Amino acid sequence: MDPAFIPVGSQAGDGAAIAPIHDYLSELLARFADVEGGSVADYIPELSKADPRAFGIALSTVDGETYSVGDAFQTFTIQSVSKPFMYGYALQRFGREAVLRHVGVEPTGEAFNSIVLDESENRPFNPMVNAGAIAVAELMGGDTQDERIANMGELFSRFAGRPLDINEAVFQSEKATGHRNRAIAYMMLNTGMIERDPEDVLDLYFRQCSINVTCRDLSIMAATLANDGTNPLTGDQIIAPEYVRDVLTVMNSCGMYNYAGQWSYEVGMPAKSGVSGGILAVIPGQVGVSVYAPAIDGHGNSVRGVKVCQAISSEFELHAFHNRTNVRNVVRRDYRGDKVRSNRLRAPEQRKVLSDGGDRIVAVEVQGGLFFGSTEILLRRLTELSPGADYMIVDFRRVHLADDSACRLIARAASYMADGGPKLMFCEIAEDGPLKPLLVQLREAMAGDELLLFEDADAALEWCEDQLLDTLAPSRSEAKFALSELEIFKGLDPSECRMIEGLLRPLIFERGEVIIREGDAARLFFVVARGTASVQIGVSAHGRQRMRRVASIGPGLTFGEMALLDGGTRSATIVADERVVCYGLAVEALHELAEDHPNIMITILGNLTRDFSERLRHANAEIRALE
Amino acid sequence: MDPAFIPVGSQAGDGAAIAPIHDYLSELLARFADVEGGSVADYIPELSKADPRAFGIALSTVDGETYSVGDAFQTFTIQSVSKPFMYGYALQRFGREAVLRHVGVEPTGEAFNSIVLDESENRPFNPMVNAGAIAVAELMGGDTQDERIANMGELFSRFAGRPLDINEAVFQSEKATGHRNRAIAYMMLNTGMIERDPEDVLDLYFRQCSINVTCRDLSIMAATLANDGTNPLTGDQIIAPEYVRDVLTVMNSCGMYNYAGQWSYEVGMPAKSGVSGGILAVIPGQVGVSVYAPAIDGHGNSVRGVKVCQAISSEFELHAFHNRTNVRNVVRRDYRGDKVRSNRLRAPEQRKVLSDGGDRIVAVEVQGGLFFGSTEILLRRLTELSPGADYMIVDFRRVHLADDSACRLIARAASYMADGGPKLMFCEIAEDGPLKPLLVQLREAMAGDELLLFEDADAALEWCEDQLLDTLAPSRSEAKFALSELEIFKGLDPSECRMIEGLLRPLIFERGEVIIREGDAARLFFVVARGTASVQIGVSAHGRQRMRRVASIGPGLTFGEMALLDGGTRSATIVADERVVCYGLAVEALHELAEDHPNIMITILGNLTRDFSERLRHANAEIRALE
Repeated sequence: MDPAFIPVGSQAGDGAAIAPIHDYLSELLARFADVEGGSVADYIPELSKADPRAFGIALSTVDGETYSVGDAFQTFTIQSVSKPFMYGYALQRFGREAVLRHVGVEPTGEAFNSIVLDESENRPFNPMVNAGAIAVAELMGGDTQDERIANMGELFSRFAGRPLDINEAVFQSEKATGHRNRAIAYMMLNTGMIERDPEDVLDLYFRQCSINVTCRDLSIMAATLANDGTNPLTGDQIIAPEYVRDVLTVMNSCGMYNYAGQWSYEVGMPAKSGVSGGILAVIPGQVGVSVYAPAIDGHGNSVRGVKVCQAISSEFELHAFHNRTNVRNVVRRDYRGDKVRSNRLRAPEQRKVLSDGGDRIVAVEVQGGLFFGSTEILLRRLTELSPGADYMIVDFRRVHLADDSACRLIARAASYMADGGPKLMFCEIAEDGPLKPLLVQLREAMAGDELLLFEDADAALEWCEDQLLDTLAPSRSEAKFALSELEIFKGLDPSECRMIEGLLRPLIFERGEVIIREGDAARLFFVVARGTASVQIGVSAHGRQRMRRVASIGPGLTFGEMALLDGGTRSATIVADERVVCYGLAVEALHELAEDHPNIMITILGNLTRDFSERLRHANAEIRALE
Repeated sequence: MDPAFIPVGSQAGDGAAIAPIHDYLSELLARFADVEGGSVADYIPELSKADPRAFGIALSTVDGETYSVGDAFQTFTIQSVSKPFMYGYALQRFGREAVLRHVGVEPTGEAFNSIVLDESENRPFNPMVNAGAIAVAELMGGDTQDERIANMGELFSRFAGRPLDINEAVFQSEKATGHRNRAIAYMMLNTGMIERDPEDVLDLYFRQCSINVTCRDLSIMAATLANDGTNPLTGDQIIAPEYVRDVLTVMNSCGMYNYAGQWSYEVGMPAKSGVSGGILAVIPGQVGVSVYAPAIDGHGNSVRGVKVCQAISSEFELHAFHNRTNVRNVVRRDYRGDKVRSNRLRAPEQRKVLSDGGDRIVAVEVQGGLFFGSTEILLRRLTELSPGADYMIVDFRRVHLADDSACRLIARAASYMADGGPKLMFCEIAEDGPLKPLLVQLREAMAGDELLLFEDADAALEWCEDQLLDTLAPSRSEAKFALSELEIFKGLDPSECRMIEGLLRPLIFERGEVIIREGDAARLFFVVARGTASVQIGVSAHGRQRMRRVASIGPGLTFGEMALLDGGTRSATIVADERVVCYGLAVEALHELAEDHPNIMITILGNLTRDFSERLRHANAEIRALE
């Protein structure tokens, strides 16, 4: 019904960069197409009708990209590949302890349809053999059989990300001929391992095995497990990560029946096979893989499926114990407040104070995932950086995940450090973001006034700078200033200053008012007397224009200097953050004055050049510190 | 012999930030100190002398930090905890296939001293039961028994990172009473599973079990496995990562004997226990953990050891299938050449060309580990960025690891892209660094002239800019320029230009010659006519001063402008990269001229201000792009 061969590159935009992955899957298809051996399952008459030459491979990533080749869109019944998903459902619904009372987690070394049960614990050995799967099928929720059937169908459709149906012919064939499973179910009823009518439980179990899927569906289902239980296509969180862990563990030790030891040694991917010839394998955090090739071996595993998984595991190095954990670069970089500054513009003497004393502010950018090993390194790095630091900013902007253990350790470290040592500040922990658990832990561990949270590193840096300036140069703020003390007028003699004063006009702007607007002609030059204004530039994000604050300007600082040069236009918009009192100087009047007093212009331009040069030098140092 | 309790914080500098980890281990010690149950092994008389109350915990990281509490320095014999290390040695020496002929990888569900053998394969089931370990002991290299004993001792000393010795009394006791092991050995000799004199093999095996270790030693040995086979203290690579993978797989499925299924479900850390009460567990890529508590249960596992491992696994979330793989942030950031520039200073019209057309240069910074899942995302990102790009710079500076699969995929993608599409450039792949395998693969996949390698992203960016300038503004380079065309003199009238020309002095500097030196008084201002000079600043790295190139200056550009302001000092050193011809302008002479012609000074300072302002604006944009 589907094309026999999905052309390479048809899925993801024909990019040359990703073509090797498509090509590789096609090569695998060619390499193993002619492998003989095994035969199509025939214990259910309907299954024996499968085409033994059918062969498809699909691979889906945790962000929902799928590569597929061959008969990846051909439909077949899911059979035992359904078992891990029912087990995950049961764990999610009843929790670990309750489910363990119904089914164990020990590999048996026996075949998939073994009738051996763990009599000492009065439960089947594990949920990947038929006995265990039947016990799990009993746990499907619903008051009536119809409800249970509907719930089961919905469960699998959520894993696949599309509505799945049941192959009625296979279901009837299974129901009519599944004598061995019937024996197992009655044996379990006899020992009290199941309690409901075995015919109802088996009815659901046979339907579960008869769900129609394609190889591509299985790869999405596998990617859902790889993605901690969230379907990467729909974003639907189906089972919690802690239960995904359990499902993968049992797949790893029991998913390939009595081939499990060798599989886990050679392939090392938690996997599940079914007698219809499907195999699904999970590489946690990376991808889900699936193969469809109906001829199966004596263990009940697809012959070509096993070979494809061996090749993929070996050639892409996807073995579970192939170490790819990276703890060493959890600290993206650290920098100090003498080199990197907040966007708050500072007067020259304040800049000097920060250049001299800013190294007491230490900022650490954290990245990647926070779990035990990486958190230990982060805490060790904070310890190393703390001597000489008065303020430590921990910036979580690039952290995408923090597990409970990381949250607890960080919260505990923070509460220890609150007793002395540098002040610890945390940035970018959104209430509704992935680090919410950290916020909860921090609030539990620390008193409200001890916990210093900031929206972003810039806000934290500005706060630290203010603290430092209050400590090291307490006289800064609201004091009146003489015109001759402003950096831009330095070097003018008193009579020259008086001439300039005569040109200044006081101007008042209310909160939110635009003082100058990007693109307007530049005619005035400003000195701030009171209040703070923000420099904003237009940025386009996702096709929309919006304003972004890039700097703030306080008393004693100037802006709009470019107006002093031949009438350009404003390069940014400046908005009053609060009531702002400033003095405006008409550039035209200044030029007129300069005709008779050229030294005024030379002095002002010289000051301006020096100021820009210093700011440029600092910006270059910041670029180097940021790299 | 050691203090009974290692005080908290004594290992790592008493930092408040890391104290929670020390404290947690101490809490575990207190929580489980009074746990009853189990008894000290007594099948060897010497072992029964152990103090059942002894209790120590140690945890070592992959970068060599160790946390230890309780009796972590008390000596005991290693017993079965030695098995994974001997197995790793055998794999390293003979390879996977040869070792598989001697011992299998299937869990048995039997006790550690089981005499059951895999008769169909004619080998013991796995190397973690005594039979398998005896088969592995036969594989120790050496021509004589003395040599084999010495080699074995050296092996364990390398794993521990210090010389270990053998407990002679325990060894003699094992040798005298190890009848069951003797029976196993003779049974294996009978079936041809071993070939050498069983007494020699057992002599080595008993010695191996009698090695004296401390809990701290075991944590370092475990950390060596966590660290891909390299001892984190000594840097000694003892077994290759591919064999570490095998060792961990077998520890995971067989390391805790017939408790393995439950262990792997609950604890999920590859582990090995011994009858003397030691347990060692590995969290790949993160830490090694060890516990010493002599009372053992019926499976042969330390009672308190199991409880500590359960608690550590659960509370620090260290289960093998707890997903902490992070593939999503493999691309640290990308930027384009219109926003971020190389350190090569450009003339204003060149800067304009790059601002307008620089977005054809795309740079991608890659970070973390490159393996299948992260490489797939990287290649996909390259595909997304390639429309509209003429040049793509891939910067590997922050990549600490690339497995074979990643190297092959990248090399293949590069050779595909060489057939069309943007030019791909690679930076920061050192011949002697962790990405050497990538270099090898790239050289195999591509013709020499197709492969564009650069030392760093700045060099690649400069090369791309040059290409772009050649294409978009081909007339730039060696053309003569009039003084009035220089940005700094723009706006001067012809007579003013002639006055300045009268002040210029031609100066020639040979390659390597210092043109101006940081800290010197600034008296001259320069215009480059031919050649390129480098701006260098002194940086201190690891306590030493060295010079670092931060920019380069070519024809038509000026430097030393700050001399125009009241006699400051040079802020950087400028060195000729090749023969440089430039014109020097004595600032004093210019000031004299300006007294009669103030407009000259006003014009020059205005130009300078505009230039600085533009450069500052670009630097700020670059800072935003870098963040």
